[in-house]
Amino acid sequence: MSDRDAMPYTLKVIGKVESPLTDRSSAPRQPDEGAPPAWLVFEPDVLEGLSTLRVGDKVFLLTWLDRARREVLRVHPRGDRSRPEEGVFNTRSPDRPNPIGLHRVEITAIEGLRVRVGHLEALNGTPILDIKPVLGEDARCR
Amino acid sequence: MSDRDAMPYTLKVIGKVESPLTDRSSAPRQPDEGAPPAWLVFEPDVLEGLSTLRVGDKVFLLTWLDRARREVLRVHPRGDRSRPEEGVFNTRSPDRPNPIGLHRVEITAIEGLRVRVGHLEALNGTPILDIKPVLGEDARCR
Repeated sequence: MSDRDAMPYTLKVIGKVESPLTDRSSAPRQPDEGAPPAWLVFEPDVLEGLSTLRVGDKVFLLTWLDRARREVLRVHPRGDRSRPEEGVFNTRSPDRPNPIGLHRVEITAIEGLRVRVGHLEALNGTPILDIKPVLGEDARCR
Repeated sequence: MSDRDAMPYTLKVIGKVESPLTDRSSAPRQPDEGAPPAWLVFEPDVLEGLSTLRVGDKVFLLTWLDRARREVLRVHPRGDRSRPEEGVFNTRSPDRPNPIGLHRVEITAIEGLRVRVGHLEALNGTPILDIKPVLGEDARCR
């Protein structure tokens, strides 16, 4: 192992989700299953990084699904025990070694450190890790 | 702050990228700019999580861009100093508070813990954090 392998990588929480969703068991599993709008509330020290975001932008929001179980490697898809287990990397289960949530959202309002998005399935209080623009292949037809 | 806020979130490296790309300055900035195929070499302890991935699957690969500068909040797009600075959350710059790489790739071969993908712009040795299927809105036309 190199020195780099021995050093743990530590995430910085740059904000939190503000959402009416509070309970994992009743939360929608995908954004197109009735997920409500939410506010992304950023820490003051990342304000500069937000400065050129605009209403109407489509972005990938990355979150840390802090209520997930990180030791899980196989799950029943959508928690349905009648379906055969799959490897977690073939699912969007929050339970996985690194429970990073990936959410494609549209920005509907910006008020300083508060950014409003449509249809987010993350729970209230979920830590925010990153925002990235939707670009290139991700923005085209498949 | 709650106790949860005070606890740092630590990533588990679940594998490494094996790529002919070794130098950040000459690496392509996007996968459609000549990025070569690469192998994803996983750690033995996550094998179960890979078990239902198949050749032909389109997935999001998440990496940790370990050579990035995490204090950067504004950049010139594509490193071009003639262009005005933007907030990093409006760019795909690796330099950002949490340098998580998001790569949409197609699986072209699977050999146990080694998974081959097409067109990956990540450098050789880049730590792997996660793989997720491309689903729902991400898989449709925009």
